[in-house]
Amino acid sequence: MTHEVAVGIDVGGTKVVAGVVHNDGRVTERVRVASPQGDGRAIVDEIVRVIRGLDRPDLPIGIGMAGIVGRDGTLRHSPNHGVDDVPISAWVRDELDSAPIVLNDATAALWAEHRFGAARGRRSVVMVTLGTGVGGGLMIDGNLVEGANGFAGEFGHIIVDAGGRPCFCGNTGCLETYASGTAIGKTAAQWLAEGRGTKSTLARPGPDVAPITGKGVTDAALAGDDFARDVLREAGRWLGIGLVGLVAAIDPELVVVGGGASVHAAPWVLGEARKVLGERLIGAKHRPIPDVVLAQLGDDAGMIGAGTLAAG
Amino acid sequence: MTHEVAVGIDVGGTKVVAGVVHNDGRVTERVRVASPQGDGRAIVDEIVRVIRGLDRPDLPIGIGMAGIVGRDGTLRHSPNHGVDDVPISAWVRDELDSAPIVLNDATAALWAEHRFGAARGRRSVVMVTLGTGVGGGLMIDGNLVEGANGFAGEFGHIIVDAGGRPCFCGNTGCLETYASGTAIGKTAAQWLAEGRGTKSTLARPGPDVAPITGKGVTDAALAGDDFARDVLREAGRWLGIGLVGLVAAIDPELVVVGGGASVHAAPWVLGEARKVLGERLIGAKHRPIPDVVLAQLGDDAGMIGAGTLAAG
Repeated sequence: MTHEVAVGIDVGGTKVVAGVVHNDGRVTERVRVASPQGDGRAIVDEIVRVIRGLDRPDLPIGIGMAGIVGRDGTLRHSPNHGVDDVPISAWVRDELDSAPIVLNDATAALWAEHRFGAARGRRSVVMVTLGTGVGGGLMIDGNLVEGANGFAGEFGHIIVDAGGRPCFCGNTGCLETYASGTAIGKTAAQWLAEGRGTKSTLARPGPDVAPITGKGVTDAALAGDDFARDVLREAGRWLGIGLVGLVAAIDPELVVVGGGASVHAAPWVLGEARKVLGERLIGAKHRPIPDVVLAQLGDDAGMIGAGTLAAG
Repeated sequence: MTHEVAVGIDVGGTKVVAGVVHNDGRVTERVRVASPQGDGRAIVDEIVRVIRGLDRPDLPIGIGMAGIVGRDGTLRHSPNHGVDDVPISAWVRDELDSAPIVLNDATAALWAEHRFGAARGRRSVVMVTLGTGVGGGLMIDGNLVEGANGFAGEFGHIIVDAGGRPCFCGNTGCLETYASGTAIGKTAAQWLAEGRGTKSTLARPGPDVAPITGKGVTDAALAGDDFARDVLREAGRWLGIGLVGLVAAIDPELVVVGGGASVHAAPWVLGEARKVLGERLIGAKHRPIPDVVLAQLGDDAGMIGAGTLAAG
């Protein structure tokens, strides 16, 4: 028998997913709604509406959010939601008389993978999430690392190519600009503009010409398109370059890669990342190289992790 | 009154320093000898000779070593010493009937700075050491992070400019190739070759032409040489770029910079690193920026930290 332990919510840039999380990682009463944009109050209102809809006032609440989240449960900066400095925890508590825990979505996802997924039994783990952007979570000696302010794990904004591609954050050469789903689409477009990939299906847009997306590239790769596979390998190469730095700095036993842009692209992205890490990590011939594995809990990881953490 | 607590030894690439470490961080009976090169057995013999010379068989022994050191006290890979896979702890124990603790020198230095120096009272700290190479140590929630294998803190081999300067490690664009003492000399030589710095004293070598070193650049900067100061600022800019990634990933409350190449160059190197970190860190306007401060214990930090850790 499994117990209901908490309400878990993952507030992403495009959607909010929520449900009742059980102590074996199972989720019931799942809800999925669109995520409000650019208005902190609207985001909190949507969270409150979803929680009220579940009608479980007895259960603790855990909320995972894209962005940098302070230890006081304030969303400090979230390009994905287009908001800054929103006191999520305080405003939810004002409405529900129950203070939720609020943390970064990728950190929550790592906790879920540690409890129920790809990192079970592992105590020193780097998790990188590839989606619209690149996020991450960090576990050392069995504990999640939140950082002095709650902002640890922003692996997307490690600079891997100073002076390289511009990033929305104002910087240049961030890992995110080379390894995110967005970056995969951008690399494909750039290579096509340079005259590469003339035989690729990506070079023959239909009458409704839309920008090439990471999903479009992945679909083409799955259909056998060599150019698309090379584009994914390029994202994997950059992921590997980022991991060289992270593994040199932190020496984890395992790297878990999650996020929507990773699942179907894994044969090429993770394959290349493993290769680069094995070749370029300092002292590679004299140390174990951590395995780079795909996350197992998919889109549910943030919700499950947030709920499980709220249960304490 | 202060107690003698342990023998501390720091085995660097060029010198071995050792002494009796007291519980207030004071060091007595200090010894300093040249470090053997390229021969693991000779390194251990020198360590044993130094310890026997101190003649304190009652005290525990702590050894800090440049390089990546496994949790079993084996020096796995040390470009500075020119050796790989030397079982330091086991061989010292065979000679002295006392098993020393052995760890990375920068990690030991961070412990010393935490106990007695620039990081007193701080619990979440990134330490970067600038010397012949770039090393580092990491503390989270008051605990040293050794990593799954003992190899954490190799910040010199974070890739900040993929495809950039070649590194001895086989990689390109490692932080070490831009921010170490060695790199400072190299940048000066490169800029002079490009025709910059014609008014600099560094452009007028004496009859004994020797390669420009980090120390030479720092001496010129201290004497008022603007070109030399720009070279140091360039190293600081790269240090800042590396710190952008480290702080994004780990979110420490403090960054401590130590190592021989940092002390006199700090006004330019640390000044520029602070500026870059404050400008380029993700979410910089919505979060505290950790201060970047100079280490306080100088060359003694590794010895003091190793001794203090050995005392338990």
